[in-house]
Amino acid sequence: MTYGEDRIYKKVEVIGVSCKGIEGAIQAAVAKAHRSLDKISWFEVQEVRGHVGDDGQITEYQVVLKVAFQLKE
Amino acid sequence: MTYGEDRIYKKVEVIGVSCKGIEGAIQAAVAKAHRSLDKISWFEVQEVRGHVGDDGQITEYQVVLKVAFQLKE
Amino acid sequence: MTYGEDRIYKKVEVIGVSCKGIEGAIQAAVAKAHRSLDKISWFEVQEVRGHVGDDGQITEYQVVLKVAFQLKE
Amino acid sequence: MTYGEDRIYKKVEVIGVSCKGIEGAIQAAVAKAHRSLDKISWFEVQEVRGHVGDDGQITEYQVVLKVAFQLKE
Amino acid sequence: MTYGEDRIYKKVEVIGVSCKGIEGAIQAAVAKAHRSLDKISWFEVQEVRGHVGDDGQITEYQVVLKVAFQLKE
Amino acid sequence: MTYGEDRIYKKVEVIGVSCKGIEGAIQAAVAKAHRSLDKISWFEVQEVRGHVGDDGQITEYQVVLKVAFQLKE
Amino acid sequence: MTYGEDRIYKKVEVIGVSCKGIEGAIQAAVAKAHRSLDKISWFEVQEVRGHVGDDGQITEYQVVLKVAFQLKE
Amino acid sequence: MTYGEDRIYKKVEVIGVSCKGIEGAIQAAVAKAHRSLDKISWFEVQEVRGHVGDDGQITEYQVVLKVAFQLKE
Amino acid sequence: MTYGEDRIYKKVEVIGVSCKGIEGAIQAAVAKAHRSLDKISWFEVQEVRGHVGDDGQITEYQVVLKVAFQLKE
Amino acid sequence: MTYGEDRIYKKVEVIGVSCKGIEGAIQAAVAKAHRSLDKISWFEVQEVRGHVGDDGQITEYQVVLKVAFQLKE
Amino acid sequence: MTYGEDRIYKKVEVIGVSCKGIEGAIQAAVAKAHRSLDKISWFEVQEVRGHVGDDGQITEYQVVLKVAFQLKE
Amino acid sequence: MTYGEDRIYKKVEVIGVSCKGIEGAIQAAVAKAHRSLDKISWFEVQEVRGHVGDDGQITEYQVVLKVAFQLKE
Repeated sequence: MTYGEDRIYKKVEVIGVSCKGIEGAIQAAVAKAHRSLDKISWFEVQEVRGHVGDDGQITEYQVVLKVAFQLKE
Repeated sequence: MTYGEDRIYKKVEVIGVSCKGIEGAIQAAVAKAHRSLDKISWFEVQEVRGHVGDDGQITEYQVVLKVAFQLKE
Repeated sequence: MTYGEDRIYKKVEVIGVSCKGIEGAIQAAVAKAHRSLDKISWFEVQEVRGHVGDDGQITEYQVVLKVAFQLKE
Repeated sequence: MTYGEDRIYKKVEVIGVSCKGIEGAIQAAVAKAHRSLDKISWFEVQEVRGHVGDDGQITEYQVVLKVAFQLKE
Repeated sequence: MTYGEDRIYKKVEVIGVSCKGIEGAIQAAVAKAHRSLDKISWFEVQEVRGHVGDDGQITEYQVVLKVAFQLKE
Repeated sequence: MTYGEDRIYKKVEVIGVSCKGIEGAIQAAVAKAHRSLDKISWFEVQEVRGHVGDDGQITEYQVVLKVAFQLKE
Repeated sequence: MTYGEDRIYKKVEVIGVSCKGIEGAIQAAVAKAHRSLDKISWFEVQEVRGHVGDDGQITEYQVVLKVAFQLKE
Repeated sequence: MTYGEDRIYKKVEVIGVSCKGIEGAIQAAVAKAHRSLDKISWFEVQEVRGHVGDDGQITEYQVVLKVAFQLKE
Repeated sequence: MTYGEDRIYKKVEVIGVSCKGIEGAIQAAVAKAHRSLDKISWFEVQEVRGHVGDDGQITEYQVVLKVAFQLKE
Repeated sequence: MTYGEDRIYKKVEVIGVSCKGIEGAIQAAVAKAHRSLDKISWFEVQEVRGHVGDDGQITEYQVVLKVAFQLKE
Repeated sequence: MTYGEDRIYKKVEVIGVSCKGIEGAIQAAVAKAHRSLDKISWFEVQEVRGHVGDDGQITEYQVVLKVAFQLKE
Repeated sequence: MTYGEDRIYKKVEVIGVSCKGIEGAIQAAVAKAHRSLDKISWFEVQEVRGHVGDDGQITEYQVVLKVAFQLKE
């Protein structure tokens, strides 16, 4: 990539879910988006949420992300 | 779906248009997105707008929604 | 298009990059999205940013847009 | 109206109140704004609120709208 | 209530869920909050969401509300 | 006014300016809007700003308000 | 309180109403919340509004606040 | 205008439309608002949008503005 | 819980404080809220802040959360 | 200052604290910023908060401001 | 710069003013910030405003920007 | 520090970058800001973003923070 050249990126909103904390949910989302959508360049966290079990323990973190990738001609 | 398992959802922004009120526009959008995009799990309303005819009657409601569905491996 | 008929639009978020000012970046993004995604009906500017070179000159404008197009049955 | 021609619209903020639900409040506001302000082209919902009676029943819906109309030369 | 007298209200955030549309979810939430929390004076809608079944039908509307009531001395 | 009756309000954005503090600027704006626009029912503060003189003293407070009044048939 | 120790606070949304200006409404709300809810530690102003009488005078200020207090074990 | 003197401004929301870029749409809106509404003092851009033709060319820019003018006694 | 059945949730805003990172503060808040308020179903992160000691080390993370639980009849 | 001449301002975020109400905190912040930062031209209030003592009295108001000053060549 | 290396940037808020359109105001602000503050890496537009003369012509554009530069050890 | 005494804080926006997760980026930013800017009292997270390598791995976390410190006379 060279600055100043015309190009276009697309941003897609995904939700990563993991029991391994916030970074775990981000990594899972980015890795899966990379495989099933396209080669991701960067991400932006939108929301952090989570589910709580009957015992008051956090069973999973849910992170809403925007992931961005370059559109080829 | 089991809480605590790694998974990923995608959210897509659509606009449903209907003359049958706000719920009508949501239902139309969800039904069509379900057929043409993917199996929708939930929706979130972003904006409610509408068009007004020359006689001051509302000719249609336009509802901007985010619809979410699970990405399979 | 006739007002009052049920229909559905999709909005996609893209980032246009150009050294030719804000309108240049919008035009580049809309033109490329038109070719690689779908026939665009309208756009909405979300953010305007840019990169600055070592000499303090702006090397490119980066415009984050939502572009919208009608989904056919 | 033809796209590409210079023109100007004005947006005005109104609050429609009705006991007949959200669409009822929107219709009342648009119909009255159409008569007392100007010929409305479209509306955008800003807020939905309501009043609750002593018996826990909703006595009215209050919908804050922006309504838009074209300014003639 | 007389305008100009010192008084204090409390706002509480609740989520009403109903299969009977947006007003249905608001009414359910207000009625239950009225019984289990306190005598509600007004409500403000914060978010409208919903769940979609496997057949693409909306199974329920979920409306996030703030409900307000006066605190007595 | 009786709750449950159809009616419509209009909100107008004004900026009150006064050297007598925030309430001073609100009172000035409401009093003048009351005379030159219409009979105001309530106001909502949007922004508080001010101008500072060369000696570091605040010369005036500028309060951006929405003021609301009922539209008669 | 010692920094670094695990603890939890709760925030509650209240609306203070007073004819004695913005600080008057905040003080009334904090004093009453202190008595009827819990021992308040700090407050955050969310909105400032007010009611206007038929003569264009402000009859009361309404300040929406979040008040916070520590939850004991 | 002298800082420190009581005065009041009104802000009005308009949408300027032009095929000549963003500044073109702002200039058209300000010039027309100046003639048909009142003598404008300043403007604030709220949104930039546009319409796209069937060939992927931008047929017009639509700029939502707030324009402000002083209310005379 | 079955989708489609009328029910109501309440959301409460709490601040968890911990020296053990962001997840630590979330877990502390959820665990304590679970004991002192009610059985929590999910949480949503609102803000992440923290305190810094004289040596530039972070002494604690403060996470503002909304926690949600179902209201029983 | 003449309108139309190229110039540049800088905005800095400060928090003024005072026991003498909101205007007191703004004045303290502007006066000190004027001495320790630069000659301030205007200010914009961002947030109003405060601390509450054990007796339920407000011990201080904390006002988050942006203050702006012109950068000289 | 290499991705993955620890580093820190600072963002500063400036307002560029120019009679030569939006890009003109951005370029003026970036060029001056580059000389008087530090070597700028990128910018983000926050607000676009302007002043209008007595004849309804726009005398200047005022663009509020955040400019970012790397802090060296 | 004693509550109730006049004082002033400044907030500065920085971006910490680290390959060691979100807390790593916050710690790096706070530690460096502490050395190169001033003695930091607290921080507030504004945004969490990151860069993704060609292999779909997250190469770095970028956390936008506001850091606050007291201005001395």
